[in-house]
Amino acid sequence: MLEELKKEVYEANMELPRRGLITYTWGNVSGIDRESGYFVIKPSGVDYDVLKPEDMVVMDLEGNKIEGKYRPSSDTPTHQELYKKYPEIGGVVHTHSPYATSWAQAGRSLPLYGTTHADYFYGSIPCARSLTEAEIEEAYEKNTGLVIIETFEKMKMNPMYTPGVLCTNHGPFTWGKDAAEAVHNSVVLEEVAKMAMFTETVNPKVDPAPNCIRDKHFFRKHGENAYYGQ
Amino acid sequence: MLEELKKEVYEANMELPRRGLITYTWGNVSGIDRESGYFVIKPSGVDYDVLKPEDMVVMDLEGNKIEGKYRPSSDTPTHQELYKKYPEIGGVVHTHSPYATSWAQAGRSLPLYGTTHADYFYGSIPCARSLTEAEIEEAYEKNTGLVIIETFEKMKMNPMYTPGVLCTNHGPFTWGKDAAEAVHNSVVLEEVAKMAMFTETVNPKVDPAPNCIRDKHFFRKHGENAYYGQ
Amino acid sequence: MLEELKKEVYEANMELPRRGLITYTWGNVSGIDRESGYFVIKPSGVDYDVLKPEDMVVMDLEGNKIEGKYRPSSDTPTHQELYKKYPEIGGVVHTHSPYATSWAQAGRSLPLYGTTHADYFYGSIPCARSLTEAEIEEAYEKNTGLVIIETFEKMKMNPMYTPGVLCTNHGPFTWGKDAAEAVHNSVVLEEVAKMAMFTETVNPKVDPAPNCIRDKHFFRKHGENAYYGQ
Amino acid sequence: MLEELKKEVYEANMELPRRGLITYTWGNVSGIDRESGYFVIKPSGVDYDVLKPEDMVVMDLEGNKIEGKYRPSSDTPTHQELYKKYPEIGGVVHTHSPYATSWAQAGRSLPLYGTTHADYFYGSIPCARSLTEAEIEEAYEKNTGLVIIETFEKMKMNPMYTPGVLCTNHGPFTWGKDAAEAVHNSVVLEEVAKMAMFTETVNPKVDPAPNCIRDKHFFRKHGENAYYGQ
Repeated sequence: MLEELKKEVYEANMELPRRGLITYTWGNVSGIDRESGYFVIKPSGVDYDVLKPEDMVVMDLEGNKIEGKYRPSSDTPTHQELYKKYPEIGGVVHTHSPYATSWAQAGRSLPLYGTTHADYFYGSIPCARSLTEAEIEEAYEKNTGLVIIETFEKMKMNPMYTPGVLCTNHGPFTWGKDAAEAVHNSVVLEEVAKMAMFTETVNPKVDPAPNCIRDKHFFRKHGENAYYGQ
Repeated sequence: MLEELKKEVYEANMELPRRGLITYTWGNVSGIDRESGYFVIKPSGVDYDVLKPEDMVVMDLEGNKIEGKYRPSSDTPTHQELYKKYPEIGGVVHTHSPYATSWAQAGRSLPLYGTTHADYFYGSIPCARSLTEAEIEEAYEKNTGLVIIETFEKMKMNPMYTPGVLCTNHGPFTWGKDAAEAVHNSVVLEEVAKMAMFTETVNPKVDPAPNCIRDKHFFRKHGENAYYGQ
Repeated sequence: MLEELKKEVYEANMELPRRGLITYTWGNVSGIDRESGYFVIKPSGVDYDVLKPEDMVVMDLEGNKIEGKYRPSSDTPTHQELYKKYPEIGGVVHTHSPYATSWAQAGRSLPLYGTTHADYFYGSIPCARSLTEAEIEEAYEKNTGLVIIETFEKMKMNPMYTPGVLCTNHGPFTWGKDAAEAVHNSVVLEEVAKMAMFTETVNPKVDPAPNCIRDKHFFRKHGENAYYGQ
Repeated sequence: MLEELKKEVYEANMELPRRGLITYTWGNVSGIDRESGYFVIKPSGVDYDVLKPEDMVVMDLEGNKIEGKYRPSSDTPTHQELYKKYPEIGGVVHTHSPYATSWAQAGRSLPLYGTTHADYFYGSIPCARSLTEAEIEEAYEKNTGLVIIETFEKMKMNPMYTPGVLCTNHGPFTWGKDAAEAVHNSVVLEEVAKMAMFTETVNPKVDPAPNCIRDKHFFRKHGENAYYGQ
């Protein structure tokens, strides 16, 4: 069942330790098949070095396990909310990558300081508010997804233009058209989070890059006038 | 004698350089067999690339060497005090991992800034006071253990909820139910020490995470209501 | 056509990920054959692990593609302007290496703090101004080259004495007598950018090194009185 | 001639890139045979990946080349002065390792913040003053050695208790009883320089460790009452 997607999601998960974004099992990637409405996600707390494509868990968008011998990632309800709200999203990633997590712990949105950021994210990467005690009690992982959505709604942001978020006191989530692109965006987020910290260290009074730089670089790589790549 | 435990302790020691926590021989791991009351520890100053399981030294809780051709780690009396005081502890680790050691050198407890920390440590990781000149003279390594215990007693902390400590001007100790878990906690401590430094760099006025976040994440992974993993 | 140069440029491109300067495809190296007036450059957005010498694209100095199945790097017009202005330049490199990019994002020239810098760059490495909105609209990549040249002209700097620049909100460009030397200078720039950030962290009031240190080290390695190496 | 020493010095040089202390050819190690009064040093500017034991250059203490097809390291006169002044020194190392070099560029001595430092260096590691323009002109590398000696004489420091120095605007030199120990001390210096920067980042008002900690750890590893190791 969904063997091709399982392989893709497995490969995307394995890319996290290869890219140095993961300590132990601190991360999870999922990918969705929009036709069936099922998504495939990493099992909870299974070591990367024993993980196999067939260990991936198949879920539906109501949170029922459709197939799989393991329990799905504990963050599954967060992935589920993002898939339900945004039909453009095909893959979701959560990590505790150190620089992005540090911005999340600091409770700060990540300013757009340069073209590396603008090549992938159209503006600052927002920091979603902390959950309230009641939200945590009621349904922590589901409400994490809803607070991400609340952030994007309030700021009228397009999630495909800004494919990532920082959750206060927690860490980053990213997404993309599929699992591989979502992981790619996680790698970029970690790199720009690192460079933003260094940038402020070198110049504590630095301003974000002007909008014309943001527009030029984002649309050099995205949309109908893109001319980067082959 | 205790061949299985020697292998476990050897493997736990070898994990330290693999995880990048160790320069030269700056670390040691031990594990205890509660039935016999003997613990097994790395020999002092032996290179990791020549270390073998049979080089591990067997000690009793009075500090007598029971078996082994080498002298035990010079930090052995610190391990011994922790084993004597806390019967739940099955393994102890000492390293000079750079971020955790820097917090120890700075004389600061490590604040709980987010869920990565809360997944393993239930609150800030305390910084034990410096030894006095008399305590150093009298029995440096033993008193290091006693000052760790003093810290936990004074703050009424459960060592299995906060399985690590920073010793002022020195570095971290961690522990766990066995040697492997103690090493796991050393890796986590280093990672959260790094992220806490980055977090304060990004936001010097940051507050620790709220208690509801700490409780949610700690008990998601520990205790009878845990639902992380398989 | 220009097979030898293609191999050199290919090798210089592959050195970037080996030296850790590159994430994904974020960099490009070119080299010029001054006799024909053609230069060879990496194709746009092709993964390093599938790149082959024959994938390199041959361009003339008017921006016409002379040979190659791929589109050239989107930064090609920047390389072109540098080759047209400075006949001494034989190779050009662009990366988003994190420390150099952070200085560029911070909008600061890189001060000469020591001999590591002075061995390769005769004075501070300038930060070229941001492009105006009109310059971006009109011809972004070409104007990036012209602003680099403007910076060197205004400051009456010799580009062979200071073989690199930081472009505000963007990142570094370096050059050299050939593609390999240009990459070598990129590696050095990243290393001195890192050390300059650390130097200011350790001593926020530090002054640049005196000119006599700069002169001694630069001319120990360059010019007719050089005595470093064989 | 001195084939055993050449091998030792070659091995010590090769340890520098393995330990990550070296970019390109930015470092050199030498070792001395006190009987003949000859010392063996790395040739200048030869790549580590083509270096062979027989490429090492044999020098006498007056600066004459005794044997070798290559020119010796340009820093040879610095090594020579240290050997002439301090008969206990058997090996000397110079690197541009990033953290130690940053302290040197910052013009600051490295404070003793903890036991990692005290295990190898008995107190703060001094920062030698910049050379004057006249000293640079006259004999740069020789005067670098003399300024190191001036620093130790003025502060009445024992070079075997503090086997390293930071040269302002330049970088570190370390030494030891032989080439291997000198390299070991370079690795330690880089590690403690990194941790000292982190320590001050975490606590800008931190004080150096008390003398009783320094004495305990230094003499736990050195001198007749040492009890670390086998």
